[in-house]
This record gives sequence, structure tokens and C-alpha cells, in this order.
Amino acid sequence: MRAVIFDLDGTLVDSVYAHVFAWQRVLAEADIHIDGWKIHRLIGMSGGLLTKAAAREIGRELAEADAEALQTRHGTVYKELLPVRRPLPGAIELLRHLRETRIAHGIATSGKREDVKPSLAALHVPGDIIVVDQSDVERAKPEPDLFLACQSRLNVRPEECYVVGDAVWDLLAARRAGMLGVGLLSGGYGEEELARAGAYRVYQDPADLLSAIYQLGLRAS
Amino acid sequence: MRAVIFDLDGTLVDSVYAHVFAWQRVLAEADIHIDGWKIHRLIGMSGGLLTKAAAREIGRELAEADAEALQTRHGTVYKELLPVRRPLPGAIELLRHLRETRIAHGIATSGKREDVKPSLAALHVPGDIIVVDQSDVERAKPEPDLFLACQSRLNVRPEECYVVGDAVWDLLAARRAGMLGVGLLSGGYGEEELARAGAYRVYQDPADLLSAIYQLGLRAS
Repeated sequence: MRAVIFDLDGTLVDSVYAHVFAWQRVLAEADIHIDGWKIHRLIGMSGGLLTKAAAREIGRELAEADAEALQTRHGTVYKELLPVRRPLPGAIELLRHLRETRIAHGIATSGKREDVKPSLAALHVPGDIIVVDQSDVERAKPEPDLFLACQSRLNVRPEECYVVGDAVWDLLAARRAGMLGVGLLSGGYGEEELARAGAYRVYQDPADLLSAIYQLGLRAS
Repeated sequence: MRAVIFDLDGTLVDSVYAHVFAWQRVLAEADIHIDGWKIHRLIGMSGGLLTKAAAREIGRELAEADAEALQTRHGTVYKELLPVRRPLPGAIELLRHLRETRIAHGIATSGKREDVKPSLAALHVPGDIIVVDQSDVERAKPEPDLFLACQSRLNVRPEECYVVGDAVWDLLAARRAGMLGVGLLSGGYGEEELARAGAYRVYQDPADLLSAIYQLGLRAS
């Protein structure tokens, strides 16, 4: 195995619960009352899919423009709730380790570019790190497009890539991309939920993964 | 089986994610930076245990007075974040069903009395419903005291009681009280986490439990 593609929210940055709470508030403003745990299980999908899935949950159809407006509002509320991004334990060190050992790696997120920037800054990654976000592909997770775009830029084959993520959507998209998924508990899913969705291994957080990275059999390109 | 004892937050009211986010903010103010998913897994414990567990997580000891101050601050931030309590789907109907079929039931929560009142109002329960909160016992969950106090007031034996909860702390306290635990996914735990902690059955939310309530073999006293 030659490359690692990371999800961002809940995998490298501790932002899932702020996202859940921001979505719950924004959806409630639009009279879409969805239980927190159901929103939690939608995080990681593209914002468009998430809003539509949430609306369908209460038997409503949502027009494209309304879904778009909700996403914009979510961006605002999310920033208010979480003005400072916090890297998950070991995230900075894990990325540094990969750089120093010259193992190909990148980040592929369903998030929007303006939302991704502060997270990258918090992770102290160099400016040339390969990052693929929603704006780079037509369809975000659970479609495989984000991971395939990242892999192509990393110049490796899909079957040489791990995908590290905290949500079942990462693992689903990884399988569809022909990559091997690794789960992290730091997004709040249970271990078995991730294993059942196809995670080859499940670690607590980036620090736990780094401490056992030899288990992944990675080598430099 | 003759009685059902319910947890409140995450079991009857959709409040877990607001609690997580409020705790994360309050702990960060005190320079205790804990990952969201770890706080999530502490919800349902007594506030005192939760603050101490969170501090220990980053290798600090917390004085009793500091833990108390954090709990007070949490109450304030939580109310700001979630001014309106929302019953989980089927919660009102499930409690009404138990009343109408004269099956003994009560609520036992690690929460404080002033925090419990708005939730009870949202659930449309009569004023004489049996509710046991933190102030009624010396030690809240995962100690069995809350459930035993509730069972005693319901005038049934422990082995005739179900405990319905969303957290492993409910299931742990239920086992210690000699009661049978039933898990709900509406607090955001995974199904296997609850089953492993001893849940006899796991349902999605109160509506799902109500639709299958015959599975519990309950009868009126």
C-alpha cells in the first residue's frame, strides 16, 4: 500500500458535533425537525444530499434552491458555533509522519473550500498538500469521485490507497472507489458500525492510528 | 414484567447533542479540551463524574468546587443552546400508552430538577408521574441508586422492571440494580455498543419501541 487519503471533519479535525448541532438548528429554522442522532449519521455526505435526506425523513421534498440556501445558512451557523478548529489528537503528528517518511497522502472532503481552509491551517500542513473538496467534483460522498480525484492527483492506483474516515459514507465511497477503508471512532460512530460498513481496521483517533501505523504496511513511492 | 423506568435525555427528549456541544464549550473555557466523541460517551453520567472523567482524560485532577462550577456553567450554556425541548418521536405516545394501559412507569435521570422540568412539560406528562432526579439520591448513574429509588416508589420489585435508556451508563446501572436494560439509538450510540453493554433489545426511538411493545411482555399491576 502506497497512499493514504483522509477525510477531514471528524477524522483530522474535531468538528462533527458542531456540524450536527449547526444542522439541527438550521433545519429546525426551516421547520424540518430531525433527531440529533439521525443528523449525526448523515454527516460526511455532501450538504445537498444531507439536506434532502433530512427533509425526506419527515416526508418533504426540497427544491434545489432551498437545499442550497440551507447549506449557506449552515456554513454561517457552524462558523458562529465553532470559531476555532481543533485538530484531533495526533492529527498534526500523523500528517507530519507521512510527510517525513514520504508516504503519499491527501485529504478528500465533502466540505466546501472556504470551510476547509481554517481546518488546514489548524493542521499545520504545507501549502502544497493535495486537497480535494466538493468544488472539485460533481458529486461528493458517498459517490467515489472525491477519493478517485485525490488518488489520481497522488499518482497511485486505487488499490494502493487507504481511505481513513470516521463515517460510513467514507467507507462506502472507499469501497466504490476500490480502496481499503480504515475507520476512526473520533466522529462518534460505534466501532461495529464502521466495521460492518467495511472498515479493514478501526482506530480511536489519528494518535491511535499513528501508534499502530506499521499495521497498515505502507511504503514510500 | 410490570414496570418501565425511563432515562430522560436522549431517551424521551432529543437533547444529547446539545448537551455534548454545551459540555465541549464549557470544558474548553476551562482549558479542558476533550474530543466531542469522548464527551458524547460520557453523557448520562452524573455531571460531577462527567467533569472529573473529562479532566482525567487530559491528565488533570479537578477539585469538587471546580467541578460544581463547571456544572452550573453547563446548565446556563445548555439552556442558551437549546431553549426549546423537543420530545423524541413517539415519546409522548409511549408514555400515554403506558398510562392508559395502567402499566407502572417512571423517569430516572442524572439531570438536575430545574433542568428536568421543561423536558417533562414537553412530554405532556401529568403532574403525578414518578420522577427521580440527581437531587433524590447521593450518587447518580452509573450507580444503581436512581433506578432503585424509582422502582421503590413504583412499588414493584427490581426484577420486574425494564430500564429504557440510550447510554451504556443506563444499561450498566440497570444491571447493577437487577433490572433488564432496553437500548434506544436516539442518543447516538451504535446498536452493538448498547447490546454489548447488556441491552436485552435495542430500538431506534420511543416510536419504534411503542410499535413493538408486545415484545416486552408487560402487564398492568
